[in-house]
Amino acid sequence: MTKLKTIQQYLEDNNVEAAFVTTPDNIFYLSGFSSDPHERLLGVMIFKNAEPFIVCPLMEVPDVKSAGWDFGTVGYEDTDDAWEFVLAEVKRKAGTLSSIAIEKSHLTVERLERMTELFPEAEFSRLDEQLNTMRSHKDAEELQLLREAAALADYAIEVACENIAEGVSELELQTAIEFALKKKGVQKMSFDTTVLSGPKTASPHGTPGERKIQQGDFVLMDLGVVHKGYCSDITRTVSFGEPSAEQRSIYEAVRFANQAAIDLVKPGVRASELDKAAREVITKAGYGEYFTHRLGHGLGISVHEFPSIHGANDFQLEEGMVFTIEPGIYNSAITGVRIEDDVVVTADGIEVLTKFPKELKIIK
Amino acid sequence: MTKLKTIQQYLEDNNVEAAFVTTPDNIFYLSGFSSDPHERLLGVMIFKNAEPFIVCPLMEVPDVKSAGWDFGTVGYEDTDDAWEFVLAEVKRKAGTLSSIAIEKSHLTVERLERMTELFPEAEFSRLDEQLNTMRSHKDAEELQLLREAAALADYAIEVACENIAEGVSELELQTAIEFALKKKGVQKMSFDTTVLSGPKTASPHGTPGERKIQQGDFVLMDLGVVHKGYCSDITRTVSFGEPSAEQRSIYEAVRFANQAAIDLVKPGVRASELDKAAREVITKAGYGEYFTHRLGHGLGISVHEFPSIHGANDFQLEEGMVFTIEPGIYNSAITGVRIEDDVVVTADGIEVLTKFPKELKIIK
Repeated sequence: MTKLKTIQQYLEDNNVEAAFVTTPDNIFYLSGFSSDPHERLLGVMIFKNAEPFIVCPLMEVPDVKSAGWDFGTVGYEDTDDAWEFVLAEVKRKAGTLSSIAIEKSHLTVERLERMTELFPEAEFSRLDEQLNTMRSHKDAEELQLLREAAALADYAIEVACENIAEGVSELELQTAIEFALKKKGVQKMSFDTTVLSGPKTASPHGTPGERKIQQGDFVLMDLGVVHKGYCSDITRTVSFGEPSAEQRSIYEAVRFANQAAIDLVKPGVRASELDKAAREVITKAGYGEYFTHRLGHGLGISVHEFPSIHGANDFQLEEGMVFTIEPGIYNSAITGVRIEDDVVVTADGIEVLTKFPKELKIIK
Repeated sequence: MTKLKTIQQYLEDNNVEAAFVTTPDNIFYLSGFSSDPHERLLGVMIFKNAEPFIVCPLMEVPDVKSAGWDFGTVGYEDTDDAWEFVLAEVKRKAGTLSSIAIEKSHLTVERLERMTELFPEAEFSRLDEQLNTMRSHKDAEELQLLREAAALADYAIEVACENIAEGVSELELQTAIEFALKKKGVQKMSFDTTVLSGPKTASPHGTPGERKIQQGDFVLMDLGVVHKGYCSDITRTVSFGEPSAEQRSIYEAVRFANQAAIDLVKPGVRASELDKAAREVITKAGYGEYFTHRLGHGLGISVHEFPSIHGANDFQLEEGMVFTIEPGIYNSAITGVRIEDDVVVTADGIEVLTKFPKELKIIK
């Protein structure tokens, strides 16, 4: 596991003796084991100079092993005090700890109080930034899963387009999409599937309802799947029946904005420049006030993760970063349009993972 | 808001100057405002001797007010430091704080570090147990919402039974259930709807798949809705075609176990006694080893909340407590059966919220 080695190198470089990771998404990242422990303790302990171990409920020990975890596992029952097991295993493997890195933006106060009691000699430092940086650089295996997740999102949009017809409700379309994905083996969507039609497209966070699709509507679909632990997130907007000139004009502004950002992506470019390029296209088309959100967000094990792509975020893009590019215009008098792609920064440019065509699709 | 007054009384009694609540479910409980803030700061500050306020993203301020919050609201933008706004409002309302109660099982270390910086004079104590106790005692209005949520769960089981037929897959049945609920205005299930058939019923945490229902199957459905912020959670198991004698025997053991626990419920009875009564029925029927989980869990704004109903939990039931009673037998050689009701402890006994009949239903 090179990811564990990277953490060990970090511990070495920063002279920290151990790292304790408790965020489910980070545990999956480091171990391949995916679980929502609710209030139970689940964690990966990584030492600078000893083998790591996972602490988890006893009933999950077999799942940890079958997820590919080759190291120690400490299982406890509901009637046990899980922390006593952690302490004993740490003593056995590494003796007394004088420093532990934790995820301060995730670990609760209650848990840190307990750790302070169990490891009275230890100082606690942040591991958060190190994990964010690691996770934002996807390796080849992760990229392959993201490609597959994106292909399933493309398929979902295809299904949606086939099911769009006069009188079909947003909820019916949502159900048709999710059912088709279930048949493909998708067990989980990365968020609640959005289908909005007509004036509802102008609400960036609208909820699908009983409204029936009618001639002249734009239909906006925003969805994604979780595929082997990795997320996709796509938006397409299509026209049911012949669009008006104003609808077309809004659509083209969003499409060119999406393309303007895509055209810029390569290592070294600043995130803020992408947001500015897309915003400039929309502003020049006269719709600047209707593009009310950031350009995009990091994507991977979480559907929203580091880094955020907005006008004030000046970090430079690096190879392997994956994020969305999703400009939108929300003009309630005419229509809403959003076009969202998932993209990877490559050595010399960009790979666009979502491939459903972006020329305005007119369904008759 | 009597709930806020109860917190103020707690602060008075314990000589604490303020409470800061950041769990979304507890914020909804205290304010009526429901939101998932992700990494953004959302909190209710309650003072012993001043009016409370909510801190939230600026775009959510109107929603807080329309949710019925009559007190102050402090909105901040993404480019602001939200904590500076909290500090300023606290100073304005209550001056310097020397003690603040927080949810130590929820608040992150990062946030407590920030609060310690902003309120250097303050000691921090736990509010967790006080909130758990309050939330476990439902008032009349909450009980009414839980009744309505349970009625929607009953309806879902009815829909499921109407859709069970030879060759219908688990996923198709799941889709039919959720679509019918959407048409009733249900926007959210309280957890992923479970439909398991045949041998899969013997897996307590199985996932619906492509398996098609066939003659002689038991079909297990476990589901619930979120209705105006309150959850339901029902399980029914039905027979498709004539059941075998062994299937009947397992079913009846679970049904009598469910009833044995229900018959005991009234104020003063210990939670552990319910678990023991149900377990005894199943053990006497010869299936003790196949009842592998606790009897039930608290239910309300969260689908799993305080209190837990298991054999080692000796607290006494009190009027207004709501929880599930869900014995099960999971015998992979014959079948799995679980029957789950949502119940309320009343002044002199019990009200069962879920009403779908529990005599073995045979669908032909």
